[in-house]
Amino acid sequence: MKVIDGNIASPLGFSADGLYAGFKKKKLDFGWIVSEVPASAAGVYTTNKVIAAPLIVTRESVKKSGKLQAVVVNSGVANSCTGLQGMEDAYEMQRLTAQKLKIEPDLVGLASTGVIGELLPMDALKNGLSQIVISGKADDFARAILTTDTCTKTCVVTERFGKDLVTMAGVAKGSGMIHPNMATMLAFITCDANISSQTLQKALGQNVETTFNQITVDGDTSTNDMVLVLANGYTQNEEILPDTEEFERFAQMLHYVMEDLAKKIAKDGEGASKLIEVNVLHAQDSLSARMIAKSVVGSSLVKTAIFGEDPNWGRIIAVIGYAGAELSVANIDIFIGQLPVMLASSPVAFDAEEMQEMMGQDEVTITIDLHDGDATGQAWGCDLSYDYVKINALYRT
Amino acid sequence: MKVIDGNIASPLGFSADGLYAGFKKKKLDFGWIVSEVPASAAGVYTTNKVIAAPLIVTRESVKKSGKLQAVVVNSGVANSCTGLQGMEDAYEMQRLTAQKLKIEPDLVGLASTGVIGELLPMDALKNGLSQIVISGKADDFARAILTTDTCTKTCVVTERFGKDLVTMAGVAKGSGMIHPNMATMLAFITCDANISSQTLQKALGQNVETTFNQITVDGDTSTNDMVLVLANGYTQNEEILPDTEEFERFAQMLHYVMEDLAKKIAKDGEGASKLIEVNVLHAQDSLSARMIAKSVVGSSLVKTAIFGEDPNWGRIIAVIGYAGAELSVANIDIFIGQLPVMLASSPVAFDAEEMQEMMGQDEVTITIDLHDGDATGQAWGCDLSYDYVKINALYRT
Repeated sequence: MKVIDGNIASPLGFSADGLYAGFKKKKLDFGWIVSEVPASAAGVYTTNKVIAAPLIVTRESVKKSGKLQAVVVNSGVANSCTGLQGMEDAYEMQRLTAQKLKIEPDLVGLASTGVIGELLPMDALKNGLSQIVISGKADDFARAILTTDTCTKTCVVTERFGKDLVTMAGVAKGSGMIHPNMATMLAFITCDANISSQTLQKALGQNVETTFNQITVDGDTSTNDMVLVLANGYTQNEEILPDTEEFERFAQMLHYVMEDLAKKIAKDGEGASKLIEVNVLHAQDSLSARMIAKSVVGSSLVKTAIFGEDPNWGRIIAVIGYAGAELSVANIDIFIGQLPVMLASSPVAFDAEEMQEMMGQDEVTITIDLHDGDATGQAWGCDLSYDYVKINALYRT
Repeated sequence: MKVIDGNIASPLGFSADGLYAGFKKKKLDFGWIVSEVPASAAGVYTTNKVIAAPLIVTRESVKKSGKLQAVVVNSGVANSCTGLQGMEDAYEMQRLTAQKLKIEPDLVGLASTGVIGELLPMDALKNGLSQIVISGKADDFARAILTTDTCTKTCVVTERFGKDLVTMAGVAKGSGMIHPNMATMLAFITCDANISSQTLQKALGQNVETTFNQITVDGDTSTNDMVLVLANGYTQNEEILPDTEEFERFAQMLHYVMEDLAKKIAKDGEGASKLIEVNVLHAQDSLSARMIAKSVVGSSLVKTAIFGEDPNWGRIIAVIGYAGAELSVANIDIFIGQLPVMLASSPVAFDAEEMQEMMGQDEVTITIDLHDGDATGQAWGCDLSYDYVKINALYRT
C-alpha cells in the first residue's frame, strides 16, 4: 500500500466540486462527489436517537439498491430537528441534485452539517446547484464540508490487486461534538475497486469501531454523523469477495484511510493544540481496552492537564478506575511518552526536564499496561484549551 | 423543618475545628469533627475501582460497629494511588487521632482530598494533631476541607420530633472531578437524632441517587468521594425506626441538606459562573429521567453555550438523543427558563431580548418535557468557562 497526494476524485471515474452557495456567511459551503457510474455504497450513521433528515433519506436510499452515484453536501445548516419541513427539504435536495445529474434520486446521498434546528435555506441550495460542475475543483470539496475545522482532512492510498492499481481516497470534517459513535463527523471515501455493497459494508463495519468510534473531542455525539463509502469498480479488477486475501488487503486500505482521517479529526478538535493518543495494553478484552483508552482521552481533567503540559497521572489512574471496564487495578503501569510515571500501581519518580520535553510535543502518547490479559485498544483525542471554550461559547452569535 | 444559620457543630454533642497544618502551602488544610459519644454512622463511597486509602480504612471501620465518634480530614494530598505505604499512613492517621481523643481507632473516620499519587506528609499530620482542639472553631472545619472551591458549603436544618428539636448540619467540598457517583466530593453530615446506623444508612442510600449523584462538573469521578453521616442521639428523642412517619420526615431533612449541598457544589464547580438546573418531566422511568438530566447538564457543548449565554437548544436535543435512555423523540418540549425553544420536537421562535435576560441570570434552568411517561428527574451542574481550563491546566504547578 502506498500513501499518495491526491483528493476525493483521485480514484478513477470520480469527480468532485466545492463552492460558496450561501449556507454560511462567506466560506465554501456546498459540494458534491459524482461517479461516472453507479457505485456500490456502504454507510454508517449516528447512534443518536435524534437523526437529521439528510441521514434518514440517505440511509433509506442506500438500503434500497446498495448504490449511490453522487453525494451532495452542505455545511452551515445541519437540517436536524427541523420536523416535517426538514424531511421535505432533504427529499427536495435529493430530487434537485438528481435532476441536475440526470440520474435517479435514490442514487444521490445527502449530508448536512452545522447549526441544529434551522431550516435548510432552499435558495442557497438552488444557487449552489446552478453553479456546481462535474469535473470541478475536487480539492474544494474537502473545504466545502468544514465547519469549525481549521484544516481539510484528506487521505489517499493505492494498492495493487493483481495487475490492477486500486485507489482509495477519503475526506472528513470534524472539530466539535466528536465522541462515542462518531459525532459532528462526516467522512466520504471513494474507491475504484470492484466490490459489492454487502462486502463493502462488511469492511466498513469491521473497521469503524477501532477508528472513527475511538476518537473524542468533547464527548458529545451529533445527530448528523455519517461515513459513506463508494466503490465504482472502475479498475475492473476481479470482484473482491469476503474471506479472501484480497478482502483482507482491501480492509487494511480502508482501515488505514479511516484511522488516518480519525486522527486528523482528533488533532483538529475545537481549540486543540495537541493530539493525544492513548494505547491500552494487556487488557482482559478489546472492548475493555477501547473503553479505557477512550475514557482517558475523553476526560476533561486529563485534557486540561495535557494542555497545561502537566504530567498529572493521578487523573489518568482515576479515569481507568471509573471507565466501567472489567479490570484488576493491582498492577498497572502508566507511561507518558516513553517515561514511566506509575509502575505496578505505585508512583515512579521521573526526570522533570525529560517530562517537560515529552509534554511539549504536538502529539502526546499515553500508554497504559494493565497486565491483565492479551487485548489492546487505542483512542485519539485532543487537549482542552481556552479556545475550545471560546469557540463553543460563541458558535452562533 | 426550618433552615437556620449554623455550622457542622450545631447539632448537640458535636464540636469541630480546622487549622493550617502543612499539607498545603498556605490555606487551612486540616480539621476534625468530634462527637461527645460514639454516633451511629452511615457512609457512601466512590464507585471508582481505584479507591483511596482513607476510604478503605473508614469503610472498614464503619462496617465493624456502625459507629464513629470522630472524623479527621486533610486537604492538599489525597493519599490515593500510594500503595502499601498509603494504607499504612492512613492507619497511622486513624491511630494517632484516636490516641489524641483517647478513643478506639475504629471510631475514627478519615478523609483526604487533593493531589493523587503523593504520600501523606506525616509531619504535617502530627503538626495538625498537636494543635487541633475539641471545641475549636467549627466554622473553620468547612474551610479546612476545601481544595479549588471558592467558598464553604454548609446547610443546617432543624425539625421537631415530638417534644424534641433535632438539628442536622452538613458541610461539603467539591469543585472539580465531580460526576457520576459523587466525585472529588466530600460531605459530612452531623445530627443529634436517635437513629440506628442501619436506619441511617437506609435514609442516606435512598437520597444519594437524587442529590449528590445528580451533579456533574466535568464528568470525572474521583478516587476519594465520600459522604459520611453521624447521628449521636443527643436529643434523646424516641428512636427513629424505618417505615414510620418519623423516618419519612428524617429522610426529608437529610434530602434537603444533601440537595442543598449538591447544588452548592455544582454552582461552585471549577471556573463556574452559573448554576445549571435541568428538570426532565414525563419520562418513561426515573432512571431515564435522571440519565437525560445528567447528560444534558454534563455536555461540554451545552455548558459552553450557557457560559456564552447562547440559547443553542440544538445541543440540548442532541444530548437527549445520545443519553442512552429509553425514550420517544417524537414529542419533546424544551424550555430555557420559562421560554419554550422547542415544542412537539419542532423549533419555536422566541423573543431574543427575553431570552438574553433569562440567560444572563446566575442560575439557568432547562426544562425538558418528554410527554412519554410519568417519571421526573433533576440534575445540577455549571457552565464551562475559560477559568475551568486555567484552573485545571495549572493545578499542580
